[in-house]
Amino acid sequence: MPTNASPKKIHLDDITLGDEFLSSEYHVDAEQIIAFAQQYDPQPFHLDETAAKNTFFQGLAASGWHTGAITMKLLVESLPFAQGVIGAGGEISWPRPTRPGDVLHVKSTVLEIAESRSRPNRGIVTVESLTLNQDGEVCQRLVAKLLAFRRPA
Amino acid sequence: MPTNASPKKIHLDDITLGDEFLSSEYHVDAEQIIAFAQQYDPQPFHLDETAAKNTFFQGLAASGWHTGAITMKLLVESLPFAQGVIGAGGEISWPRPTRPGDVLHVKSTVLEIAESRSRPNRGIVTVESLTLNQDGEVCQRLVAKLLAFRRPA
Repeated sequence: MPTNASPKKIHLDDITLGDEFLSSEYHVDAEQIIAFAQQYDPQPFHLDETAAKNTFFQGLAASGWHTGAITMKLLVESLPFAQGVIGAGGEISWPRPTRPGDVLHVKSTVLEIAESRSRPNRGIVTVESLTLNQDGEVCQRLVAKLLAFRRPA
Repeated sequence: MPTNASPKKIHLDDITLGDEFLSSEYHVDAEQIIAFAQQYDPQPFHLDETAAKNTFFQGLAASGWHTGAITMKLLVESLPFAQGVIGAGGEISWPRPTRPGDVLHVKSTVLEIAESRSRPNRGIVTVESLTLNQDGEVCQRLVAKLLAFRRPA
């Protein structure tokens, strides 16, 4: 399962159930966590190490949406879908928060492939993307429905 | 259904099925869309108006994760949960992309309330949050499982 730093672009025709894609790594620090939170999720447990101690998270934790955004960054380079990574939606969960110092990577697996009947040039590929920290612990599980297109004739 | 600019904090005890919460508005422009995409979702349809024209989106579109992050910003101020807005996960879909010039707001509705048996001081509140544009069109539907805590005795 190689990383896909500069992968060949793939079409719906090329995708098989169980295909796996491994991303590169992303280093997360407190400064990034706080900067994201200031803009999009300004709550004490995402903003300040001291204030975070007396909260549910018991220390500074990244916003789940920050983990989601980092995951997308890693997916854009590791899922070589020919017309891009275009999600219609999906399920997301955050079993544990991303913490300062974490090194994240994303492991994606194709769970389902549905070809469109009404639009024969496209389909929906269901992909599970696990965002793992340096200890192999799951910080996010995303099961996304992604658009994929057939290779042009 | 008033906006909650400076709301009273609520506990699990206070939350009732069907409760609604309305956020303030958030103005989105091309500069913000491109800045978010450069950092987290660097794909042509999120980065450049001209390049976006020949893609699935037929014009510049915000990353779904950008819409999600903006939604969180609006939820933090409009869902007055006493210990903060803490999500375990949920379902998300993007029926249409957020576009430059859109003015978003979020309308949240309590769909389900489950009290924990093992931890009687807390529960899970399922909240649907619709992210609507200025024409009332849904840019994101999020059904999130949020932690809520009982009022301390």
